[in-house]
Amino acid sequence: MPLSRIYKLHISPDRKYVKVLKNLLGFVPGNLSLYKMAFRHKSIALVLKNGSKNNNERLEFLGDAVLGSVVAEVLFKLYPYKDEGFLTEMRSKIVRRANLNQLGRKLGFDELIEFDKKAINISAKHSSLLGDAFESLVGAVYLDKGYDFTKDFITQRIIKPHIDIHQLELTETNFKSKLIEWCQRHSKDISFEPIENIEGDNDKLFSVQVLIDGEAMASGIDYNKKNAEKIAAEKTCEMVGI
Amino acid sequence: MPLSRIYKLHISPDRKYVKVLKNLLGFVPGNLSLYKMAFRHKSIALVLKNGSKNNNERLEFLGDAVLGSVVAEVLFKLYPYKDEGFLTEMRSKIVRRANLNQLGRKLGFDELIEFDKKAINISAKHSSLLGDAFESLVGAVYLDKGYDFTKDFITQRIIKPHIDIHQLELTETNFKSKLIEWCQRHSKDISFEPIENIEGDNDKLFSVQVLIDGEAMASGIDYNKKNAEKIAAEKTCEMVGI
Repeated sequence: MPLSRIYKLHISPDRKYVKVLKNLLGFVPGNLSLYKMAFRHKSIALVLKNGSKNNNERLEFLGDAVLGSVVAEVLFKLYPYKDEGFLTEMRSKIVRRANLNQLGRKLGFDELIEFDKKAINISAKHSSLLGDAFESLVGAVYLDKGYDFTKDFITQRIIKPHIDIHQLELTETNFKSKLIEWCQRHSKDISFEPIENIEGDNDKLFSVQVLIDGEAMASGIDYNKKNAEKIAAEKTCEMVGI
Repeated sequence: MPLSRIYKLHISPDRKYVKVLKNLLGFVPGNLSLYKMAFRHKSIALVLKNGSKNNNERLEFLGDAVLGSVVAEVLFKLYPYKDEGFLTEMRSKIVRRANLNQLGRKLGFDELIEFDKKAINISAKHSSLLGDAFESLVGAVYLDKGYDFTKDFITQRIIKPHIDIHQLELTETNFKSKLIEWCQRHSKDISFEPIENIEGDNDKLFSVQVLIDGEAMASGIDYNKKNAEKIAAEKTCEMVGI
């Protein structure tokens, strides 16, 4: 065991925190301040002298991108005969905010995140603090250990034990029916209205607008009308928080 | 010079193609079939026996993700004091389809892409074949050489010589004024209408809908009303092809 590892786990004043992280991550973190940053929500962050904010939002930006790339490769290799439409849909199923929130909860992030407990209810079902922190953690691991390590971490430590990809493949998330059911439950009228069709270089683009009780919600665009509806429905589900 | 390199550059029946790629990429490609695939547009691709399509769309999916991740890191490190909103905006300026198309043209992709010349006009200003192929190429380099190599390739061979990041930072793409000007030029009425405001856990979300001649175009959502308008304007610019 190298000395720095012994120091971090047994001597350093942060040794308790290092052990918690080691249990979570499966490895001893190198640069501890990155991980502390990953779990610092903007609600308690200070604005530093140089004008930057000492919270996890920048790491979330980076981690979101790295996670998207790793998941893209996992799917690309897992499904060698599926087209990019299928891959895109599978990825969005995996990295949906609701899933990442759930994942953060499973991993015990509610104990790790520093946030303003008076202002925020982290137990709220749709609290995105947990999913945001998961992405930030990916950013921290990437900066600390590099891409290949992060890829292994995500595949071995996150996807394998926590995400059943083939199950996700089967459980088609039908956002359109989900949205229609939600509207029925809340006695709201819903309609999918075609809006301007755009003539592209080669193909015809369809645009669809979701209206709920006559109010415009999200819209979707695709070369296929059904897909445009699906996109609009998915975005509207995000908007209304279902 | 290793034997395989001598073979590829001087003896192989593909030696001419290998030299073209070497000039473009700055290195001798390993797995040539990946690069051939990257330049094969769906308009001429065959459907293989297993149902998969022999074209660049899957590589584009992967390359888009890898490119997004590399550009995220470049910006994260280049701007240590800027917040994630700035980083997100800068990235979308860099990887906008119009920019990638222009990049593909600069790099001479029009000579390399295989496509159905009868059906498609690759010179058309908005032809996305070139940008799509650029992303596919990134996917091919990644599978051939790994992440760190691809990161070097993108930063040294693409960003440094072809993309002036600081210039992009200054030339704020004001999609709202761009859109308003376009509407004036085409004698169309434009308005930005607030739609349902969503009460989140902590913050208030604003939704804005763009209407052109009374028809709903794209919408935008953000915690800040101005940003919601900006997002809606940018998406509408993409829709109408400006």
